[in-house]
Amino acid sequence: MRINIVAAAAAFALSTSYSLTAFSQAKPETLVEQRQAAMTLQAKYLFPLVPMAQGRVPFDAATVARNAAYLDVLIKMPWDGFVPSTEGVKNTRALPAIYKDEAKFKAAQERTQAEVSKLVVVSKSGNEANIKAQITQTVNACNSCHDSFRAKR
Amino acid sequence: MRINIVAAAAAFALSTSYSLTAFSQAKPETLVEQRQAAMTLQAKYLFPLVPMAQGRVPFDAATVARNAAYLDVLIKMPWDGFVPSTEGVKNTRALPAIYKDEAKFKAAQERTQAEVSKLVVVSKSGNEANIKAQITQTVNACNSCHDSFRAKR
Repeated sequence: MRINIVAAAAAFALSTSYSLTAFSQAKPETLVEQRQAAMTLQAKYLFPLVPMAQGRVPFDAATVARNAAYLDVLIKMPWDGFVPSTEGVKNTRALPAIYKDEAKFKAAQERTQAEVSKLVVVSKSGNEANIKAQITQTVNACNSCHDSFRAKR
Repeated sequence: MRINIVAAAAAFALSTSYSLTAFSQAKPETLVEQRQAAMTLQAKYLFPLVPMAQGRVPFDAATVARNAAYLDVLIKMPWDGFVPSTEGVKNTRALPAIYKDEAKFKAAQERTQAEVSKLVVVSKSGNEANIKAQITQTVNACNSCHDSFRAKR
């Protein structure tokens, strides 16, 4: 059954905080929600790898490889949501430094992207020690960016 | 600089609703947050394609192909968050039908997954009419699942 796409789009619009005008320009609140969603999912797929790297739970190479592939996509998603129009939005821990030192923020993004991409490659190597070390490097890159650009709780 | 991974994990744990025990079993509230995050990002990357399919904004094949590839990963992410332990969580529109008719819910997931996978293939074809039609089919699959398993606002 093919339903009318105008009706489909209207149903979608009703179902979220989007409006039809948002197709061209998302509201600041929507941008914050989307970038936080990306961070939430990065946590979902990175966190289970940490106790593996620590030897606290059994190492599972297949899970690491799957999660690394997911993270390699998720890591691309938050950055276009960090625009100055979102500075007034509540319920975000994003610091003004993001907009004051854009080159440093960009470099932190790129470091994290690079570590995740390395994790994708290493996760297929079968070398457990290297995989564990690269999980640690990835976590360190995330934390380093948070240290500079996210408010402490 | 390589920091201690225990400290890194602790910093992560402090930074979200995760606790260390959550590595093995996520709280129902966390599962809901994660599945909603996946839906939020699906909307981020699907919605801009709708007005293209409608001819309301210029068709951009590169954006469709990129978003389709993102959606192909994102569509895998919500489903493990729909477990009976989340039925008591507030702020979710997930209907009890999800847990009463698991076979139908699973079929709806698979239909959506299949339409997104087709969109990935078609998006590289260069056939604008086919791409637009497949955007519509993908939206229809999303809406069909929502009709059965998500509360109306």
